[in-house]
Amino acid sequence: MESFTLDKLAKTIGGDVVGVKDFLIGSIEDSSICSESGICYLKDKNYLQKLSTKPGAVITTKELSEQVHQTNNFIIVDDPYLAYAKTSQLFSESYHSKNKKIEAVLGENVQIGKNTVINGNCVIGDNVILHDNVSIYSCTKIGSNSIIHSGTVIGSDGFGFAPDGNSWEKIAHLGGVEIGSNVEIGANSVIDRGALGNTKIGDGVKMDNHIHIAHNVSVGENTAMAGMVGIAGSVKIGKNCKFGGQVGTVDHIEIADDVTVLAKTLVTKSLTEPGAYSGVMPIQKHKDSLKFAAKLKK
Amino acid sequence: MESFTLDKLAKTIGGDVVGVKDFLIGSIEDSSICSESGICYLKDKNYLQKLSTKPGAVITTKELSEQVHQTNNFIIVDDPYLAYAKTSQLFSESYHSKNKKIEAVLGENVQIGKNTVINGNCVIGDNVILHDNVSIYSCTKIGSNSIIHSGTVIGSDGFGFAPDGNSWEKIAHLGGVEIGSNVEIGANSVIDRGALGNTKIGDGVKMDNHIHIAHNVSVGENTAMAGMVGIAGSVKIGKNCKFGGQVGTVDHIEIADDVTVLAKTLVTKSLTEPGAYSGVMPIQKHKDSLKFAAKLKK
Amino acid sequence: MESFTLDKLAKTIGGDVVGVKDFLIGSIEDSSICSESGICYLKDKNYLQKLSTKPGAVITTKELSEQVHQTNNFIIVDDPYLAYAKTSQLFSESYHSKNKKIEAVLGENVQIGKNTVINGNCVIGDNVILHDNVSIYSCTKIGSNSIIHSGTVIGSDGFGFAPDGNSWEKIAHLGGVEIGSNVEIGANSVIDRGALGNTKIGDGVKMDNHIHIAHNVSVGENTAMAGMVGIAGSVKIGKNCKFGGQVGTVDHIEIADDVTVLAKTLVTKSLTEPGAYSGVMPIQKHKDSLKFAAKLKK
Repeated sequence: MESFTLDKLAKTIGGDVVGVKDFLIGSIEDSSICSESGICYLKDKNYLQKLSTKPGAVITTKELSEQVHQTNNFIIVDDPYLAYAKTSQLFSESYHSKNKKIEAVLGENVQIGKNTVINGNCVIGDNVILHDNVSIYSCTKIGSNSIIHSGTVIGSDGFGFAPDGNSWEKIAHLGGVEIGSNVEIGANSVIDRGALGNTKIGDGVKMDNHIHIAHNVSVGENTAMAGMVGIAGSVKIGKNCKFGGQVGTVDHIEIADDVTVLAKTLVTKSLTEPGAYSGVMPIQKHKDSLKFAAKLKK
Repeated sequence: MESFTLDKLAKTIGGDVVGVKDFLIGSIEDSSICSESGICYLKDKNYLQKLSTKPGAVITTKELSEQVHQTNNFIIVDDPYLAYAKTSQLFSESYHSKNKKIEAVLGENVQIGKNTVINGNCVIGDNVILHDNVSIYSCTKIGSNSIIHSGTVIGSDGFGFAPDGNSWEKIAHLGGVEIGSNVEIGANSVIDRGALGNTKIGDGVKMDNHIHIAHNVSVGENTAMAGMVGIAGSVKIGKNCKFGGQVGTVDHIEIADDVTVLAKTLVTKSLTEPGAYSGVMPIQKHKDSLKFAAKLKK
Repeated sequence: MESFTLDKLAKTIGGDVVGVKDFLIGSIEDSSICSESGICYLKDKNYLQKLSTKPGAVITTKELSEQVHQTNNFIIVDDPYLAYAKTSQLFSESYHSKNKKIEAVLGENVQIGKNTVINGNCVIGDNVILHDNVSIYSCTKIGSNSIIHSGTVIGSDGFGFAPDGNSWEKIAHLGGVEIGSNVEIGANSVIDRGALGNTKIGDGVKMDNHIHIAHNVSVGENTAMAGMVGIAGSVKIGKNCKFGGQVGTVDHIEIADDVTVLAKTLVTKSLTEPGAYSGVMPIQKHKDSLKFAAKLKK
């Protein structure tokens, strides 16, 4: 990707440089793995202890910067998340034009349906079947023997926007999608690319139709999801889990191996133990439901 | 659109003319804005006081017609909604053939993905990005700097059918879709066209994947919706609202500005005050859920 | 389809033949209608009494085989469902190559949108409208005057996998989809093909956007489903039913004629009587929902 001096970045995003003004930044990275030529952001204390050992520079507040000892280069801003959004956009153009130039690599015996689109810098494994009208954005890897059904979209931008007053600043999505081997994904599903780093679907995962996997989710091996399951951003799901139809999750939680979530349940917290979970109002004659609602009000 | 005499319309839909038989009707319109050359329908008293000041003609029952003083032209039927469905179909052919003939107008620097289809009479603003395999039906307007992800469909017919005994009579959808500027719509979403009048998405609205916006919905500026949100017909949503994943609404309700609805909640009534709302069964070990269900039965 | 000897099948799936080793099997079939040249599987007692009168051979356990008197040919295995999965795969290649060779048959006045794909062995009735970017897999029948909106997928494989330790064995889907006349299916919906036998959508059925119909479901005439309804595998739905938005069902249940299920309800059991059913947590100010959750915990 294109490089920018710390000074140029600071001017673009509206911040002040502390450190070497002409320090060259080659990439924007996750704070936990940020390299010596990369920049990352810290929005609150919780991320301080996970910061990588030698990040090139950090976008953060004045206050937080004083607790960072791994680098001397900072861009000081009031709102690090908003500043991150603007920085990501700066790197976006070179990221996309680089991907466009790198031809997709197809394994042996790949079957590509009609009107299926594979963008640049993708790697499609042996014996993969992509049915008709599938859309594969750039930077998608699909392991061997996997099957993607019609209408499914892999690698679309995650739903990431930093609030800026009442409007929203887009977070450019500079990660990709990694799908393992022997994966099957049903029709009209969507797997978003990562913001920084990849969204990951483990070997042997089976997904039904209309599945929504948000950015930076990780799904463990052989986990199975029935139709219309929605997994929110950065959720980490273990191996051998089973999700019933229309299950949803909130974002940034962890689900252990061997968890079963029954149909339509909303997973609102991390599930650290294996076992079966549920949370659905029982179906009744509608007049009985109305009585329940009336009681609940009291 | 093609014009029809009141008499011709009445014969087609099986009603009786009261008024000028050869009065020319040029369009079917919403009762609240029906023009002097238009026809509209009134199915119950609730719409009487909102009737426009000078509609060309009204399809309604004998009883209701006697309370209408804004026109002397009526088609009298037993079931005005069913008659409206039949009338809409009559205007449908000329509507669609007109749209087909008008070429889509593309702004500057529009990026159109592979296998993306833009039908007639669309207006696509500057710098719009339509990713691969997007389907844009006729009569769609998209404001500048908006982004539509792969697999998304804009302008499909709304889900409108008038019951006719046990079968359904299709309501032809003669409205369109208006999307503002700086809107982003995720992959495999659907925004239906209006029945009469347009479905409207305000400037700066952000939608995740698998969003369903039904006919004649209006979404205020900068409102954000996470994955798999479903908004039913004619719902009016304010500005700066936030909807969690898998939220749904019933139809014909209003949601105020600055409302937050937490994930998976069904909005069953209008929400007139800003604030956070929810309504989801808490997730538990499944054996505990079964106990709750047993107690509820008692 | 290709034929296999009982011996060849047994070796491929890892079972032992009881009966005539060179008995020729021409198809894999549902146990209730298995023909004299077909093979079926029995995984538990519940299917014993529904077994057809003269199946060619049965894949089952040693124990269950002793209760079958309709044939003398068996493949004895420990896990009949897993063995069925492997058998289905054996028949899959010839099934798909046969379908590929048979050209789709289009009725009169069929309108096919741009980038819409119709695979082999399909039959599309008169006056059918397929909008843009629709995907029709092989072996789909669509009755006259039906309308399919953009992005919809008909005939994708159902979500069927037999557990094999922690991994999953794919069940090849060798059935098709039969859609009646005067059916309308909204945008980005999915109707899966049957595993054995067809998924069936009755005449006059109306479906909104984002509908998910799993394998071997049957939907009765004139039933209407609002957006985002998900019907799980092998569910049998009666005539003239109405499903609100985001309704879901568990698999293998029956729903009587004239049943109305209100929005977002999960149907967890068969509904044998007509009437209105619901089961949704009422929406409240979020702070009141938290109180309810705390009470429930006690």
